[in-house]
Amino acid sequence: MQHSTQRSRRSFLQSAPLVAAGGLVACGQAEQQAAPAVQSQQRFKWKMVTTWPKDFPALGTGANNLAHSIEALSGGRLHVKVYGAGELVPASGVFDAVSGGTAEMGHGAAYYWKGKHEATQFFSAVPFGLNAAEINGWLRYGGGQSLWDELYADFNLRAFPVGNTGVQMGGWFNREINTLADFSGLVMRMPGLGGEVMRRLEVTVKALPGGEIFQALKTGAIDATEWVGPYNDLAFGLHQAAQYYYWPGWHEPGTALECMVNKQALGALPADLQAVVEYACQAANDDMLSEFTARNSQALKTLVDEHGVQLRRFPDELLAQIGKVSAEVVAEIAGQDPFSSRVYDSFDAFRKNSIAYTHISEQAYTQARALTFG
Amino acid sequence: MQHSTQRSRRSFLQSAPLVAAGGLVACGQAEQQAAPAVQSQQRFKWKMVTTWPKDFPALGTGANNLAHSIEALSGGRLHVKVYGAGELVPASGVFDAVSGGTAEMGHGAAYYWKGKHEATQFFSAVPFGLNAAEINGWLRYGGGQSLWDELYADFNLRAFPVGNTGVQMGGWFNREINTLADFSGLVMRMPGLGGEVMRRLEVTVKALPGGEIFQALKTGAIDATEWVGPYNDLAFGLHQAAQYYYWPGWHEPGTALECMVNKQALGALPADLQAVVEYACQAANDDMLSEFTARNSQALKTLVDEHGVQLRRFPDELLAQIGKVSAEVVAEIAGQDPFSSRVYDSFDAFRKNSIAYTHISEQAYTQARALTFG
Repeated sequence: MQHSTQRSRRSFLQSAPLVAAGGLVACGQAEQQAAPAVQSQQRFKWKMVTTWPKDFPALGTGANNLAHSIEALSGGRLHVKVYGAGELVPASGVFDAVSGGTAEMGHGAAYYWKGKHEATQFFSAVPFGLNAAEINGWLRYGGGQSLWDELYADFNLRAFPVGNTGVQMGGWFNREINTLADFSGLVMRMPGLGGEVMRRLEVTVKALPGGEIFQALKTGAIDATEWVGPYNDLAFGLHQAAQYYYWPGWHEPGTALECMVNKQALGALPADLQAVVEYACQAANDDMLSEFTARNSQALKTLVDEHGVQLRRFPDELLAQIGKVSAEVVAEIAGQDPFSSRVYDSFDAFRKNSIAYTHISEQAYTQARALTFG
Repeated sequence: MQHSTQRSRRSFLQSAPLVAAGGLVACGQAEQQAAPAVQSQQRFKWKMVTTWPKDFPALGTGANNLAHSIEALSGGRLHVKVYGAGELVPASGVFDAVSGGTAEMGHGAAYYWKGKHEATQFFSAVPFGLNAAEINGWLRYGGGQSLWDELYADFNLRAFPVGNTGVQMGGWFNREINTLADFSGLVMRMPGLGGEVMRRLEVTVKALPGGEIFQALKTGAIDATEWVGPYNDLAFGLHQAAQYYYWPGWHEPGTALECMVNKQALGALPADLQAVVEYACQAANDDMLSEFTARNSQALKTLVDEHGVQLRRFPDELLAQIGKVSAEVVAEIAGQDPFSSRVYDSFDAFRKNSIAYTHISEQAYTQARALTFG
């Protein structure tokens, strides 16, 4: 590559009023402005409630990293104290706590709030949806962020993408899965829309918190489970409770994490600290995917080489059948109300273009590389 | 996914002294410290020289966005003026200008500096190397950044990843390419290691600046060219000069952009502004890949639907042959000196693990999705 002279626009920043005020407008005016001395000395102490146990690998530590970066960027003027799930409010109470102002900031994933609105799920992960790069593209340059802002405004919140797990794994099974018939009668832990898809494939779906998965699988209370990917699954020891590790994770192809911020709390910050919150989230978004990418590939090697885990791929025909049911389940959300319909249409149009482009770029490249280096 | 209680470390931040000083150490001490009033009012004016024409799509505008974010994050205390290629120094002079202090900051890609050291190329793109997510994983959590720091310290520089193009396209051709014989005698524009690979496949390789590509291809001075991807290639009008658009871009599978900073200039900033530079780069790293992901998929649709471009895939056998030669070319860099050997070993080990993991995650997922939604 190298050079031309065309102009482009940065739709994400332009759609974000706080940066328009703090950044684009301020740019070039530095020499005329006096330093905002009073603002720059004012100190703020915020609480960040999270849906993760304290220091949970990559996700809880991601919340810690975000707080550290805000501290560093603000020179200590915005101090954020991180609370693990249950320390200030339970995991399920994070949304309400930030919406109501009990905490200024929350860290989790949007699909946890489907009880508030089904459309929240498009901003984290849907079966056969967007991968990590694609969901970031949709949010920042495809209209996704403004829809998210519109949805969360009703709850007195702003939300920012703050990390991504990448493609998750398809789950742990104690028997091989070759056809739909092998799913029938299985008792499996799988939350969310993926769980709904499995339910329609005659799987008995159980909702279990993470901390109970290992014991349930070990004792046979469940036959199968999904969790995240090699890094987190190894930490849970799931390889000690099931033999087959299936791929790919069709149900969560690039789960976006969210940082939500109470609107009044954000608005009360001076413009530079508003920018600190926004850009710290964007840096964290980059960092967490990097961590998952590196640690998952290392953990996979450990699982296979040291623990003898059997990797299995869902057969093509089965994946196509799961895909068909997934499309129905996701499209049903669109039918629930006009806003959900708009989100679905935007998401689905972006997915169509992404599939065509990913086919000739990432997908084709990784295939080609595997021919020689695999 | 959902929950556990394991600890992890953030190797990237820990290896970056400037944030250790400004961020991790400061965290939790906010209440004991007085605000550094003198520092926080001090203003800095920096120059950023770039290898791109001013406002060049996604790359030059990415440099502008970086300057805007630094302005916003610093509340105007660090003002960065962006210079297009040739405005202050030519594109090829960016490295020396920042190294020598003519400018405090530079924006380009590390492989432009292979004349300084061949190993620079590992920090941007190598044929059949790492994709965007993988190179970020290697840099931040796989030891890549500390090798980059070591290399650039000799030149009085710090470097930060500041964007990524994603997988590029394989190039524009005026005839179909089915076997190695079809390459023979072709005159093609392809820079860097990819160009060296093509040279060994009996292609006559020409180095042309971006601005001359269209005319050369249109007049038949060259038979083929690579550029970036659909977004940038459409802007150049390359579809008006060649019929076949080949994929995938084996030669640049996820080109990382770099921001380099003069070490003394960085060290002269107060800790919070040092953090501003680092985190602004990380946010920009996230942003540019999002922009390329969204705009490339849209531009591909335009190229095919509106301009009737013929998409062609390099055949498997040909890709495997190119891969073999690529492996030789890249491994030769390792033989040049002990440092290059260390970089190659680190990169290659990361690639091996990444190929295994990507095979069962991104690669498998995008294949599975195409079965139903393609």
